[in-house]
Amino acid sequence: MTAEIVSVGTELLLGQIIDTHAPTMARILADCGISCTRRVTIGDNMERLVATLRDALSRADMVVTVGGLGPTQDDITRDGIAVALDDELELVPELEERLREIFSVRKIKWVDSNLRQATKPKSGTAIDNPNGTAPGLICEKDGKIVIALPGPKNEFNPMADGPVRRYLERVQGGQVIHSRTLRICGIGESAVEEMVKELMQGSNPTVAPYAQPAEVHLRVTARAASRAEADALIDPVEERLRTILGSAIYGVNDTTLEAATLEMLRERGEKVAVAESLTGGWLGMRLTSVAGSSEVFVGGAITYTIPLKESLLGVSKEILDGPGPVSEECARAMAEGARDRLGATYGVSLTGNAGPTSDDGSTPVGLVYLGLATPEGVEVESVTFRGQRDDIRQRSTQWALVKLRDKLLGR
Amino acid sequence: MTAEIVSVGTELLLGQIIDTHAPTMARILADCGISCTRRVTIGDNMERLVATLRDALSRADMVVTVGGLGPTQDDITRDGIAVALDDELELVPELEERLREIFSVRKIKWVDSNLRQATKPKSGTAIDNPNGTAPGLICEKDGKIVIALPGPKNEFNPMADGPVRRYLERVQGGQVIHSRTLRICGIGESAVEEMVKELMQGSNPTVAPYAQPAEVHLRVTARAASRAEADALIDPVEERLRTILGSAIYGVNDTTLEAATLEMLRERGEKVAVAESLTGGWLGMRLTSVAGSSEVFVGGAITYTIPLKESLLGVSKEILDGPGPVSEECARAMAEGARDRLGATYGVSLTGNAGPTSDDGSTPVGLVYLGLATPEGVEVESVTFRGQRDDIRQRSTQWALVKLRDKLLGR
Repeated sequence: MTAEIVSVGTELLLGQIIDTHAPTMARILADCGISCTRRVTIGDNMERLVATLRDALSRADMVVTVGGLGPTQDDITRDGIAVALDDELELVPELEERLREIFSVRKIKWVDSNLRQATKPKSGTAIDNPNGTAPGLICEKDGKIVIALPGPKNEFNPMADGPVRRYLERVQGGQVIHSRTLRICGIGESAVEEMVKELMQGSNPTVAPYAQPAEVHLRVTARAASRAEADALIDPVEERLRTILGSAIYGVNDTTLEAATLEMLRERGEKVAVAESLTGGWLGMRLTSVAGSSEVFVGGAITYTIPLKESLLGVSKEILDGPGPVSEECARAMAEGARDRLGATYGVSLTGNAGPTSDDGSTPVGLVYLGLATPEGVEVESVTFRGQRDDIRQRSTQWALVKLRDKLLGR
Repeated sequence: MTAEIVSVGTELLLGQIIDTHAPTMARILADCGISCTRRVTIGDNMERLVATLRDALSRADMVVTVGGLGPTQDDITRDGIAVALDDELELVPELEERLREIFSVRKIKWVDSNLRQATKPKSGTAIDNPNGTAPGLICEKDGKIVIALPGPKNEFNPMADGPVRRYLERVQGGQVIHSRTLRICGIGESAVEEMVKELMQGSNPTVAPYAQPAEVHLRVTARAASRAEADALIDPVEERLRTILGSAIYGVNDTTLEAATLEMLRERGEKVAVAESLTGGWLGMRLTSVAGSSEVFVGGAITYTIPLKESLLGVSKEILDGPGPVSEECARAMAEGARDRLGATYGVSLTGNAGPTSDDGSTPVGLVYLGLATPEGVEVESVTFRGQRDDIRQRSTQWALVKLRDKLLGR
């Protein structure tokens, strides 16, 4: 079974935004054993859309479109699919009712152009969109399949990875391509590759490294008649990778570093609090992205200015006037303050200079101190990160999580 | 003049890496006044490559390929272009000499498969590649142009933005396409479109809306002989849009809502502090993403658990035991606590239930209270957001920024 992906949107075509949905969709197709043979990006132009869809349908068994399902005049995908399939659009009363309800709950004024989102080609089935107004579509006509997905990320991702993935698994039936991703922190990509290069020679499963911001993912992919058989091929490879990489593997598939770390704390019945300066809440934001984190994460102090370091965390005047807010001493006092004043087993502090300029000329851009207060005492380390302001901030949060996890592992 | 971009590479097609080169190339084409009408991604397959190139050349004046110029068997672009143009490859002695020299300097063993990188179609001119072994190509034949660029980022970027950009400017001879983006908050996409639909009928400049998470961007694009002339066409349209949308336009081009809001505070000499529960630091993280934010943003309290709402912000036991942490009363006390205890002109609080489940069964998932403490008193509002945990959290931070900005505007 072959598929082509058609991304619709002038802003994509002109390079104003990067298309991450088509790669996501290609990976889901591959997982389901469907070969993606071509991806096309076109603008919001009805004639070109219809020609592209017809062209794709003449080659492939299936076409997946991304974007252009919204309410505005630019949103032409639904109409284009109907034309390409020689089908007609019909208004679906249940969809209209749902739309009107969303508008009323959100207290947004209803305009009739929204009705377009309540239509579908007669050969199509609407896919529920719990995160937005535009439903997705699955059309089966004349032996071909057209699937339409909305463009906004929070709508696209759950729909592609949920109902569409299940549909694809069902229509595909036979061989599956199944992957498992091992997530690694604290080791660079080339070092990981050097350690596992022997396993990268295999063909089923294959092992491939992907560099992520401040971590490495190893993707193990097997082809088999079923997901269970693929898993049976992957299991021994995972075992060998774990022998080589040990506790550097912090999680599998979608487990984030913050989720893995919080889970370790939860198992130990311990709690963590944060004291953030340059990251301004980013570390807390990551920890609270995990559902149920309130069992383990008590909270934090965003002490972005000097007076708050004193009033919220008890950093002394001597430290603030002496070594200053970006110093080993300040990171130490912030971590202690977070642990003691906020009431946690561990206090994690981050203070540094994220740039673009040095406030006082004495701390280089990228210099960050990390404090880790534990029941046994406080440790402080420093690193100088390179990059833009938000790179430095993000790397700081990653470093803090790696170090907290190391501590829990007794390293 | 029209162009299509063809990205070549199985790893791109399967979504294993994200294609950022095609967007870069599309922006360069637009800068030079060349319309990019389609982008295609195909794998390392000669038959499909030739068919795709011929197809693209039948429609467009120019085709730009990215990737597949290296020495391995997978690198088929050079051969594919020769076939598609009915041309022949020839070995270029100077290219061979340069290649052999690179290998000798780098002390890498020469293998004859490298000779492929010293060939070019007879109709083509090689583009020097100071950062790698594979030269680029510009072919002009039968009134069509084919440009081939290498895939590695450090080779692609300087070649695309250097010799290729200069070549495009020369063949195009003048016209530029220039855009300005007006950023709007607090109004939905379809309402914005309804308000400005008359201006969306224009052809030069064009006006097009783009929905972003919780905001709308209006992109005004003009074609003219120079950037200055394009700006002169855009200016009166911006003026009319500002008359219609008023202060809902918070910024232009890259200005974020957090940057615009902080700038308003800075001009007034006022400061803001945050008290975050469900967002866990996200609002603080956004505010501190702006360079120089410490002049205006004092800090915040991440009171993720109930005891910290009391100890850091002074929320009373009566409120926490009565209406509870997700309540109008708690949002009010949190905002007051942030303003008074952290020492700011404005205190912004967010408390709510981000899901996936309701902690106590009484607060629905997505219910969020926003408190805004000002010198004149405290206001509290509530909204119920739909979506995943992080959507609800992100929308909450956006809502807080919109409401703070409204307050500064006297609304």
